[in-house]
Amino acid sequence: MSDRPHTPLLDQIARPADLKHLSDAQLTQVAQELRSETISAVSETGGHLGAGLGVVELTVALHAVFDTPRDKLIWDVSHQCYPHKILTERRDRIRTLRTKDGLSGFTKRSESPYDPFGAAHSSTSISAALGFSVARDLGGIIPEGNGDAIAVIGDGSMSAGMAFEAMNNAGHLNKRMFVILNDNEMSIAPPVGALSSYLSRLYAEQPFQDLKAAAKGAVSLLPSPFREGAKRAKDMLKGMAVGGTLFEALGFSYLGPIDGHDMDQLLPVLRTVKERATGPVLIHVLTKKGKGYAPAEAADDKGHATAKFDMVTGKQKKAPSNAPSYTSVFGKTLVDLAAKDDKICAVTAAMPDGTGLNLMAERYPSRTFDVGIAEQHGVTFAAALAAGGMKPFCAMYSTFLQRGYDQVVHDVAIQRLPVKFAIDRAGLVGADGATHAGSFDIGFMTNLPGMVVMAAADEAELAHMAKTAADYNEGPIAFRYPRGEGVGVDLPEVPEALEIGKGRIVTKGARVAILSFGTRLSEVQNAAEALAAKGITPTIADARFAKPLDRDMILDLAANHEALITIEEGAVGGFGSHVAQLLADEGVFDHGLKFRSMVLPDTFIDQASPADMYEVAAMNAPQIEAKVLEVLGVASIGEKRA
Amino acid sequence: MSDRPHTPLLDQIARPADLKHLSDAQLTQVAQELRSETISAVSETGGHLGAGLGVVELTVALHAVFDTPRDKLIWDVSHQCYPHKILTERRDRIRTLRTKDGLSGFTKRSESPYDPFGAAHSSTSISAALGFSVARDLGGIIPEGNGDAIAVIGDGSMSAGMAFEAMNNAGHLNKRMFVILNDNEMSIAPPVGALSSYLSRLYAEQPFQDLKAAAKGAVSLLPSPFREGAKRAKDMLKGMAVGGTLFEALGFSYLGPIDGHDMDQLLPVLRTVKERATGPVLIHVLTKKGKGYAPAEAADDKGHATAKFDMVTGKQKKAPSNAPSYTSVFGKTLVDLAAKDDKICAVTAAMPDGTGLNLMAERYPSRTFDVGIAEQHGVTFAAALAAGGMKPFCAMYSTFLQRGYDQVVHDVAIQRLPVKFAIDRAGLVGADGATHAGSFDIGFMTNLPGMVVMAAADEAELAHMAKTAADYNEGPIAFRYPRGEGVGVDLPEVPEALEIGKGRIVTKGARVAILSFGTRLSEVQNAAEALAAKGITPTIADARFAKPLDRDMILDLAANHEALITIEEGAVGGFGSHVAQLLADEGVFDHGLKFRSMVLPDTFIDQASPADMYEVAAMNAPQIEAKVLEVLGVASIGEKRA
Repeated sequence: MSDRPHTPLLDQIARPADLKHLSDAQLTQVAQELRSETISAVSETGGHLGAGLGVVELTVALHAVFDTPRDKLIWDVSHQCYPHKILTERRDRIRTLRTKDGLSGFTKRSESPYDPFGAAHSSTSISAALGFSVARDLGGIIPEGNGDAIAVIGDGSMSAGMAFEAMNNAGHLNKRMFVILNDNEMSIAPPVGALSSYLSRLYAEQPFQDLKAAAKGAVSLLPSPFREGAKRAKDMLKGMAVGGTLFEALGFSYLGPIDGHDMDQLLPVLRTVKERATGPVLIHVLTKKGKGYAPAEAADDKGHATAKFDMVTGKQKKAPSNAPSYTSVFGKTLVDLAAKDDKICAVTAAMPDGTGLNLMAERYPSRTFDVGIAEQHGVTFAAALAAGGMKPFCAMYSTFLQRGYDQVVHDVAIQRLPVKFAIDRAGLVGADGATHAGSFDIGFMTNLPGMVVMAAADEAELAHMAKTAADYNEGPIAFRYPRGEGVGVDLPEVPEALEIGKGRIVTKGARVAILSFGTRLSEVQNAAEALAAKGITPTIADARFAKPLDRDMILDLAANHEALITIEEGAVGGFGSHVAQLLADEGVFDHGLKFRSMVLPDTFIDQASPADMYEVAAMNAPQIEAKVLEVLGVASIGEKRA
Repeated sequence: MSDRPHTPLLDQIARPADLKHLSDAQLTQVAQELRSETISAVSETGGHLGAGLGVVELTVALHAVFDTPRDKLIWDVSHQCYPHKILTERRDRIRTLRTKDGLSGFTKRSESPYDPFGAAHSSTSISAALGFSVARDLGGIIPEGNGDAIAVIGDGSMSAGMAFEAMNNAGHLNKRMFVILNDNEMSIAPPVGALSSYLSRLYAEQPFQDLKAAAKGAVSLLPSPFREGAKRAKDMLKGMAVGGTLFEALGFSYLGPIDGHDMDQLLPVLRTVKERATGPVLIHVLTKKGKGYAPAEAADDKGHATAKFDMVTGKQKKAPSNAPSYTSVFGKTLVDLAAKDDKICAVTAAMPDGTGLNLMAERYPSRTFDVGIAEQHGVTFAAALAAGGMKPFCAMYSTFLQRGYDQVVHDVAIQRLPVKFAIDRAGLVGADGATHAGSFDIGFMTNLPGMVVMAAADEAELAHMAKTAADYNEGPIAFRYPRGEGVGVDLPEVPEALEIGKGRIVTKGARVAILSFGTRLSEVQNAAEALAAKGITPTIADARFAKPLDRDMILDLAANHEALITIEEGAVGGFGSHVAQLLADEGVFDHGLKFRSMVLPDTFIDQASPADMYEVAAMNAPQIEAKVLEVLGVASIGEKRA
């Protein structure tokens, strides 16, 4: 492309080892060129821009000092990995980011040996770095070799309990390993916890030091284990940082804070710790998300996630939308419900925008709780709000609710507390790929005694389901809905509570009944149109509830059709399995029923558009049509059996 | 009973409010009597003795100072709740602890208004206390009223990430609430993390202070928010404790450490914070697990869990066992496997004895990792060990693996890393009740693409499955087995790897095939004996694998029997659901098959003996027999159809 940036030095870097021959000044230039290349690539592909721009210098410095892929560089969450991918033999494909058959938007083991441990969910990197360090010391053998492990983790991710667990264990095992705390005061949303205030205090009182001198001073303390050398360490650190005691308390040596955009600070500190460290070291690096690209720096979210954009103006090229997103429909409905009931409140875990709770937070801030990246706490906190007489909505993505699963079982379901789970991003999600798919929640929620589980067929249904959840106080209730825009139906002026455990017949037909749970309903309707041309008119039903099942409706559909097909945006073990259990228990299979359950296939599906992903999953209209024809024994177009 | 202790003052306490009229000296006496009553009760029932004895004084002090049930007293894990139950209107039933229809061994909302938030899994109490505090301030209305919330949490539970998440959020929200850190340096096993060393340092350098004076001094700092009053707070704390900065960093006021067995320290401190606190306060209390009962204090596990025992000698009255436990069979097999392969290592999360990894830890300490109460970290740590070339066994109870579910999905399954999950306590577990049941793992593991899932039918099968897991390195693999003793079969001298995805026919029969996944096999065999007397000889098969399924065997069973019944110790959505999916996809139901799937019922089953619990679940031999008769249409004894 004509507007590609001029990157003469970067063009000479085929792999990270090539950085070893460059001077510090040249490395600074590589970083500048890498920033330009990153901006240029993301302007074409869209994606996570701000995080990568914040770590351009850090990426170059880490690859220049350490020996990847022998040394294990582990990016937490890995939204910030685009510059890393450009440096690690993937520059030629960087403009395929997040597209079908292109590069993943995250680090991925199957993509490159430079990605030793993939990520997408947060706060796994310290556990991973510890695992590699222990494996190295135990003699684990892998093709790339087992060198040092370096976790790069943001301040938001550091607030998750999992990171604390890993620090606690790493400090105890006292293995040589490195944690780079990338403190940009901004993960997806502004950070909210006490830890964040603590970090601010760490550098507020005493800003950047003369780090070259400090680095020299600091290393002399590294070989001393914390317990013996605590006092000496503290005295020495006084010269370079105000505290770090929380990390020291967990057994880490603390260095910093240092300016993450200054190669003259990064390089000497990294070289020094690489040479001298014997135990776990935390290096506190301050960066700016979106650094070096004015439109990103100026944005509220610091260019966190962006569509394709114009490089000069930064203006995003979003496709015009026709229907509101499910997320916004939920957010608005919740605000309306909260206006009429002051006991309604809401909890999310660092997903206020993604779940639509930003609307609730604006209107009813005292009743809206963003607990940070802390799903375990978030679920139990919601359970206690319910025990205390409130009506909490707990809004999380399906894939992140997995983080709080035990709390859903132990604190909510067993205690029958009326928490209302709004499960966003249910089903396949598109560009974020397999790690963000919401494939398992139908199964792991319907399993739980006393849990009510709904799925919205369209955005109007979603509004009704939010109202249903608000009104239901006998126990826990969940409703799921996908990422993206609704189908364009009219929204109800006032949503109405649905009858618990009752589905609806959408179209009456004959021979085959298709029972849909969730938003595949529109594809089912498209399939039905195609089938009509072949003389087949399926009955179409919207289950609404996977638990409790609408027994009467399902048994009636089974009794009056030769075939019954269920379809859901989830893996086997969910809705279709509960229907099969009912049919088996009722003896329906004893005398024959052409029953099929269309579920997500038994593979992790790589990123593509949602429609393409559902094509891979064989759950689009043509495939539903084909399933009906197959089940009815209608072999080819136009052919019909009696 | 004649040997009941003499408890004249305790006998006058019908409810906690009665403590309000007593002098401090009388409260000390109540505590002494409460200790005797607790020992006496547990000698009859068995149960968790050490934890309760450690908090006798704390229990009396908290109930004397706060106003339960209006104030919410939340016991973390709640092993330590027996003295609390005796004081809160349940003394008359305390000798029914952990038995069918008796008191639960844990706090339980449905049991008493004095149990505002039940527990059994660890580290939920701070989240719960924060939820109650927020609900109170938002005007949540509940029958008992919304007063103060007090979480009592052990040092082991404090090491879990969830507790950190809750502290981080509580410090940020700055609500008045209380956390009692009950530091006994011993949860189930000795603590292992850096936090534990940190706590030791806190009181090692400077032991107990004159706490009456200290309490007076400390309160003057309570109303000052941390951020403004940090310096002043620190200066004041210097007089009473060496640090506490980790908790202060998270926004809590820190008081302590104080002697948790000295009423003259506990009462003034609690009264003072109750009167003066405006934000979150952590009170660091030192106690001895098993305090006041010599046999418990002398035991390695400080009397953590005990059978019925002789009160004088402390000698436990355990029933003689005939067969080794599944846990010990796994532990011994793992040691044998590790002897032959130095890449085999093991990870558990504060369950070394419970999972049999204590044997591995004795023999191969450098390859055995107890990460503490930290399932999230433990799973991802194991994933990275695998990525680093090791062969990690990750041994956890089914119910606690729920804590690491997202990590199983995101770090293990998606990356296809060969972690070997040893899932102990699968199925119903007896006295620990619903919170410890392993009901859901079949569903949530079989859902995952690429996961191999086995269940052992007996202890010999378990040995083979451990060997199968050791040899399988193409991806993740899991095997589940129950709590308790095996069935008494001979153990193999050398376990052999099973063929992946292949089941076995145990008995060839006719008309009905029973396909068992797990240890219900022996009940199936008992049922078959009873059926033989009625002229019915079922085919019995052991599936061994829920994933991948043995398609050929299952389709063959379906083709050659009029009925096929699956049985498993798990909820719907697991093995039987996968079998149903296969049968549906293959068109087996099209022409009729009497298919039934016996699964755990859709209820949380209260504690009883495992046999009694399976009776409630309708999964014992008589009920399997009845199911066969019902499915075959054999109405009553002796009657047969053609």
